[in-house]
Amino acid sequence: MSKAPLLTAVIHKKIEFYDLDPMRVVWHGRYIKYFESARCKLFEKIGFNYDIMESSGYIWPVVDLRIKFVYPAVFKQKISVRAELVEYETRLKIRYVITDVNTSKVLTKGYSIQVAVDNETHDMQYTTPSVFKERLFR
Amino acid sequence: MSKAPLLTAVIHKKIEFYDLDPMRVVWHGRYIKYFESARCKLFEKIGFNYDIMESSGYIWPVVDLRIKFVYPAVFKQKISVRAELVEYETRLKIRYVITDVNTSKVLTKGYSIQVAVDNETHDMQYTTPSVFKERLFR
Amino acid sequence: MSKAPLLTAVIHKKIEFYDLDPMRVVWHGRYIKYFESARCKLFEKIGFNYDIMESSGYIWPVVDLRIKFVYPAVFKQKISVRAELVEYETRLKIRYVITDVNTSKVLTKGYSIQVAVDNETHDMQYTTPSVFKERLFR
Amino acid sequence: MSKAPLLTAVIHKKIEFYDLDPMRVVWHGRYIKYFESARCKLFEKIGFNYDIMESSGYIWPVVDLRIKFVYPAVFKQKISVRAELVEYETRLKIRYVITDVNTSKVLTKGYSIQVAVDNETHDMQYTTPSVFKERLFR
Repeated sequence: MSKAPLLTAVIHKKIEFYDLDPMRVVWHGRYIKYFESARCKLFEKIGFNYDIMESSGYIWPVVDLRIKFVYPAVFKQKISVRAELVEYETRLKIRYVITDVNTSKVLTKGYSIQVAVDNETHDMQYTTPSVFKERLFR
Repeated sequence: MSKAPLLTAVIHKKIEFYDLDPMRVVWHGRYIKYFESARCKLFEKIGFNYDIMESSGYIWPVVDLRIKFVYPAVFKQKISVRAELVEYETRLKIRYVITDVNTSKVLTKGYSIQVAVDNETHDMQYTTPSVFKERLFR
Repeated sequence: MSKAPLLTAVIHKKIEFYDLDPMRVVWHGRYIKYFESARCKLFEKIGFNYDIMESSGYIWPVVDLRIKFVYPAVFKQKISVRAELVEYETRLKIRYVITDVNTSKVLTKGYSIQVAVDNETHDMQYTTPSVFKERLFR
Repeated sequence: MSKAPLLTAVIHKKIEFYDLDPMRVVWHGRYIKYFESARCKLFEKIGFNYDIMESSGYIWPVVDLRIKFVYPAVFKQKISVRAELVEYETRLKIRYVITDVNTSKVLTKGYSIQVAVDNETHDMQYTTPSVFKERLFR
């Protein structure tokens, strides 16, 4: 059973021609862009943007990414991408679901895991720095 | 313990400027391209190309993809991408390891899973069609 | 002096992280995507989509593309992309202007030229096929 | 009549699946990547890399780009990309020709123009800074 997300963001997109492959569906690697767009919106909701991230002395690289392809997205299809923060204590885990806007059919699911890394020492942090938690809970 | 791969292919690449992000490392989603290049070479080794795939009446979409980012790749870094076929009976599972050519340090690891789908009925096949197995074992 | 456009379409975008390069601006080659999004909307306005294009027996490849970079676009910047059809008789010429939504400052300008090509003989057409002109003037 | 190039570099590539579009040819915007790969090799030949560019206090953004598409490139096609420096006094103009390796048929031609910009004042330089010219003529 999955826990309730701590934070949720949704974006909408219409599939572009330049993201399609010869099978006339979105090339599988390009969904990572859609995930990122939703993740950026999620972080924006708590005011955690790249400027703050950088000035905090930490960067938060993606260290693990998973994506399951259920149905392919096609040209001009309207999709929604939902991002949900499901873990934050030691690492940030975000889950994604991409659905067709009209039918609500699930097209793609996945997650990403980010860890904080000290920007000078490059040491991985085993606890999420307070700069993130303060924004999450304020 | 992981089984010996049934088939292996390796490609070499030099990191291009256009794949970098503002952190001056390869943007995480672009490693999927490097995986694909190695997978294509793997399939070429047994003469399993897109023409044969298509004329066979099946397509083999990627249905699951995982990627772990260990160290970021940087501009002009020389990398090798190794693809190994580790399952073929009911689905094709390919493992990937990206390493620095000079130091052999592991940069990225991952896998992809593909299943055969009938190109007309769109039915997923629960056994890998013989068109693939014949090439693998001839 | 430039003629009044025959048809105009405008799209809006917010710059995404994955389009940025190490200079923290949009990598120059990615503006071609923004041009295409606006061009697709332009064609949609007259009901000229890829299905109709294909069933007409012609394809309309881009044969010439020019882009002038005035100011770089940055992360989260809101831009508008205007596409204007300025020629249609023998070839389709579309002009593009990308501006900052808030300041109206011009960021990028360019044009693309497409010609109709018979999908079977691959012969370039020296007059735009009626399938396009009918939609433009109906 | 075009002048002899001051500097020439050639790279070779094999067209990748992820660069293809639904027409089963390279999506037109992706040739900009191939141009860049050849341009980087050109600059490398005179030891003018991004580190030196940055430490010189100037950046050299692309301000104008033109590309003519003659024949489309297809999956696994082997191409060569030739970059030639044809102007350097006030701006860097580089010409590109992409040809099929086997037939020498020209697939794509184009050019890019770069100007030096002071990295602090953002002033465009009307003469190419000596840091570039010294490397070109040493």
